[in-house]
Amino acid sequence: MKGRLYGVGVGPGDPELISIKACRILQMADVLAAPSSSVEGTDIALDIASYYIKPSTEILHLPFPMTSDRTVLEQQWDKNARSLQERLDLGQNVAFVTIGDPMIYSTYIYMLQRLAQLGYDIETIPGIPSFCASAAAAQMPLGKGGDAITIIPGDPQKVLDAQSGISSTLVFMKPSGHGRKIARMLAQAGYRNVTLISHAGQRGQKIWRDISAADWEDIDYMSIIIARKDE
Amino acid sequence: MKGRLYGVGVGPGDPELISIKACRILQMADVLAAPSSSVEGTDIALDIASYYIKPSTEILHLPFPMTSDRTVLEQQWDKNARSLQERLDLGQNVAFVTIGDPMIYSTYIYMLQRLAQLGYDIETIPGIPSFCASAAAAQMPLGKGGDAITIIPGDPQKVLDAQSGISSTLVFMKPSGHGRKIARMLAQAGYRNVTLISHAGQRGQKIWRDISAADWEDIDYMSIIIARKDE
Repeated sequence: MKGRLYGVGVGPGDPELISIKACRILQMADVLAAPSSSVEGTDIALDIASYYIKPSTEILHLPFPMTSDRTVLEQQWDKNARSLQERLDLGQNVAFVTIGDPMIYSTYIYMLQRLAQLGYDIETIPGIPSFCASAAAAQMPLGKGGDAITIIPGDPQKVLDAQSGISSTLVFMKPSGHGRKIARMLAQAGYRNVTLISHAGQRGQKIWRDISAADWEDIDYMSIIIARKDE
Repeated sequence: MKGRLYGVGVGPGDPELISIKACRILQMADVLAAPSSSVEGTDIALDIASYYIKPSTEILHLPFPMTSDRTVLEQQWDKNARSLQERLDLGQNVAFVTIGDPMIYSTYIYMLQRLAQLGYDIETIPGIPSFCASAAAAQMPLGKGGDAITIIPGDPQKVLDAQSGISSTLVFMKPSGHGRKIARMLAQAGYRNVTLISHAGQRGQKIWRDISAADWEDIDYMSIIIARKDE
């Protein structure tokens, strides 16, 4: 039987800000896969995870070069995915650690996309993103009431992009009352990947990849739409 | 000695997706303050917290009415803040629980703002937001590379607002290389509250409320700017 790949968010940096679930996964993993590069931050994920793994856990360092050369990157991502594949084919459970949340600007995303396509069994454990820890530290709300929140990585050009509607991800919290309206607006704005998730990570979790199939009368408060233009 | 108020994010719903730190705070709290309303979701925070508190912990239910009448809301928030104040003045440590992250669309924010103004000792424990758990469940990246991410609550009108630059919060990840440029752009765009946080929740954490005072040559990768138009 093949092993399972876990993408484990270890949180923003404080080893206490990891979830109980992430700890449990780290403790049962056979292999701890850690992205390594010359950039500060990647080693922090490994440092945090090291608190929680059992002594027999093998550590697999995967290089993620800091370059904008797409060809170099793609080749290395393919190579790293093959290293993970080898372990999974041996029946080993592999925990790939990322700082913060695995779905926000992580190298894990590139592994997930390759291995999901090959049919491997994958589970992602969310983590506390650094902007939540930052807001908590600063006692500064990220969003109140109907505020929209835009997350922008490095390049400030993105401010302009966000302002002219080029945000690639839109997250709608509590969309149930406006479901049909949102679906219509997103289609018009060219968002092709519109996913509805209700009760994420809880009993009764449901995911609609085609939100036109959702029965909005039955969908309650605890739901979220994530819309992306690509993929 | 007065007690301390903790804003505790209990995560997206799965009791295992709470942080070790949140558990520790819940276990030592004298009073568990739980927002209660007719809306599903508020009771989930209490349910999750109940797993972790000690039997002697008193539970304080605070009503947060679901109304858009600002006067009614303000009166109730003032009243709830006074209930918390009473406990803190008795020297009790109070954990106010919220589902998800306390800085994202929570009722805690209104308590924090009132009690901080009165000089109470407050600590906020970040949590995993529901959109991270949703993205993990859906195996759907929230942001890759230079993607901007916009979080939009309920009303779809916010899509239009975000697209015309009315996002009230902008989060810049890894701004260090562009620090001065970002500061200039934000000032021009009317963002008055621009805060730089480095190493949030870690040793060496630093917060700059006036980013013109930041020495960008000394600020590394592990930093974030949160910019807001109000406050």
